[in-house]
Amino acid sequence: MGEFDLIERFFQRPSRRAVLSVGDDCALIQPAAGQQLAISTDMLVEGRHFLSTVDPARLGHKALAVNLSDLAACGAKPVAFTLALALPRADPAWLEGFSRGLFQLADAHGCELIGGDTTQGPLNLSITVLGEVPPEQALLRHAAQAGDDIWVSGTLGDARLALEVFRGNCQVSGEVLERARVRMECPTPRVELGQALRNVAHAAIDVSDGLLGDLGHILKRSGVGAQMETAWVQGSAAVTPDVLALPWPRRLDCVLAGGDDYELLFTAPVLHRERIHALASDLEVPVTRIGRITAESGLRVMDPHGQPINRRFASFDHFNA
Amino acid sequence: MGEFDLIERFFQRPSRRAVLSVGDDCALIQPAAGQQLAISTDMLVEGRHFLSTVDPARLGHKALAVNLSDLAACGAKPVAFTLALALPRADPAWLEGFSRGLFQLADAHGCELIGGDTTQGPLNLSITVLGEVPPEQALLRHAAQAGDDIWVSGTLGDARLALEVFRGNCQVSGEVLERARVRMECPTPRVELGQALRNVAHAAIDVSDGLLGDLGHILKRSGVGAQMETAWVQGSAAVTPDVLALPWPRRLDCVLAGGDDYELLFTAPVLHRERIHALASDLEVPVTRIGRITAESGLRVMDPHGQPINRRFASFDHFNA
Repeated sequence: MGEFDLIERFFQRPSRRAVLSVGDDCALIQPAAGQQLAISTDMLVEGRHFLSTVDPARLGHKALAVNLSDLAACGAKPVAFTLALALPRADPAWLEGFSRGLFQLADAHGCELIGGDTTQGPLNLSITVLGEVPPEQALLRHAAQAGDDIWVSGTLGDARLALEVFRGNCQVSGEVLERARVRMECPTPRVELGQALRNVAHAAIDVSDGLLGDLGHILKRSGVGAQMETAWVQGSAAVTPDVLALPWPRRLDCVLAGGDDYELLFTAPVLHRERIHALASDLEVPVTRIGRITAESGLRVMDPHGQPINRRFASFDHFNA
Repeated sequence: MGEFDLIERFFQRPSRRAVLSVGDDCALIQPAAGQQLAISTDMLVEGRHFLSTVDPARLGHKALAVNLSDLAACGAKPVAFTLALALPRADPAWLEGFSRGLFQLADAHGCELIGGDTTQGPLNLSITVLGEVPPEQALLRHAAQAGDDIWVSGTLGDARLALEVFRGNCQVSGEVLERARVRMECPTPRVELGQALRNVAHAAIDVSDGLLGDLGHILKRSGVGAQMETAWVQGSAAVTPDVLALPWPRRLDCVLAGGDDYELLFTAPVLHRERIHALASDLEVPVTRIGRITAESGLRVMDPHGQPINRRFASFDHFNA
């Protein structure tokens, strides 16, 4: 199968919103009047971001999900994406699964594939996603304010649990592993929650490198600090029973520094607590308050007895991992 | 050097037009009112699109140039780009050269780096470029009309000459090789020409896979055919003396099917001949008329004696090369 056949067979679909889509030198879109355009790019590499044995449909889902998660963290509405794909070979069965997983998620969010590139090479997936957000309403990393609550959506640590099992660092039942593996391979980008948090949250980021590391980005950008108790790691909507079953030090690692969660970490004024619970409940996404932004810089993590935890939690860094 | 240090040191620069640039979950840009957005993505893989020995500054140039060339082929004005980069290791000398070549070209076209991703992996460069074009003015592949002249900008075949030398298929002097190599490694995207051809040309494409193959895309999309004599391959502004020195069959291959030229191939009504010569002269870009669009489908290539050339010219296909 040649490059052009491959594109036609697996990636060409009737264009909806795009003026011009897959198949010309460029795609053309007409941005909605007055809206700002939010743009993000993420690249996934075999062996680093996913295992070679991953189900291609799940990989198609994840490649787009991690990009949609960036839009969610800005409060942007997905519009379109491009896909650049390096493949060792043009394997129809793999491409069928990959494109199915990709388009299923894309369709669920009305996000249209408008162009891209395919080439032969070590497996590499690079997606650039475009979204819209009204001016001044984007959620940004530098907008946290002293006194803000710190919130997290969904659950943390499940993806890391799966990774620890694959690395042979812990053992769980097949059922537990499968649940954790779905969270690792099929993360749920919090696209609707991100949009609902416009004008409610101050700062936001998606948890991709690990909670504490990603919180660190907000603190640095915003010129503030934070205090976090860990009672919520002992039992809350943010921790699944599977992660809760882990011994305390490993659980702390998974939840606070696990990474690959693709949940939203956001800060918001105390006066919006009720509103946040209400909008999260409408969207059926659990949200948990996990700390407070402080004027004093630095991140203080306390154990359930109020004592500072001085361990170092390494966040994921692609060149120092 | 960690991922975030690497981004800060080599890729973070004061943002100009972007509302928000490198360092948040998304970049934000405010599209100019009423303009359409042209978007293109190209991925370059080591060993396939460039040699491992390439000068990193030239590679930085080329990675952006091939994307700007897609904007040029649509008549769009460059605005911004994202860069996703997989690197085997964070080598400061390599990154310094790469980012220098990249930004030199970006600055020349006022095209701002607004975001991206860096990760460890086999060397892979994926760029998504954004440009603006007034509605209805984009140059598209499907707009060729019977009777149009077929034009090409610049010179063809030089990049392929360099490749043939590297493959050991022909020998040239060091001086000739260096000139051809610069054309292969540092192509010039015809950005200004593309914009000048709005409302003048009908269809356009950039020559990346080879002249005949790329012309074939226009013919297929436009539902037309073409007739091309090859007298111009015997001597015209479109063929450098270095390529002219090649024996006829190899010269035909290099010029008609060489690829990697990144020149503009476009069709335009006969009545615009003078205007096209004038605008090209203003921009100091040679343009050459090489054939005519016909209502009858199919591509007829004639030798200088008017006899049909029946050889097959294979265009570059990433999965059948």
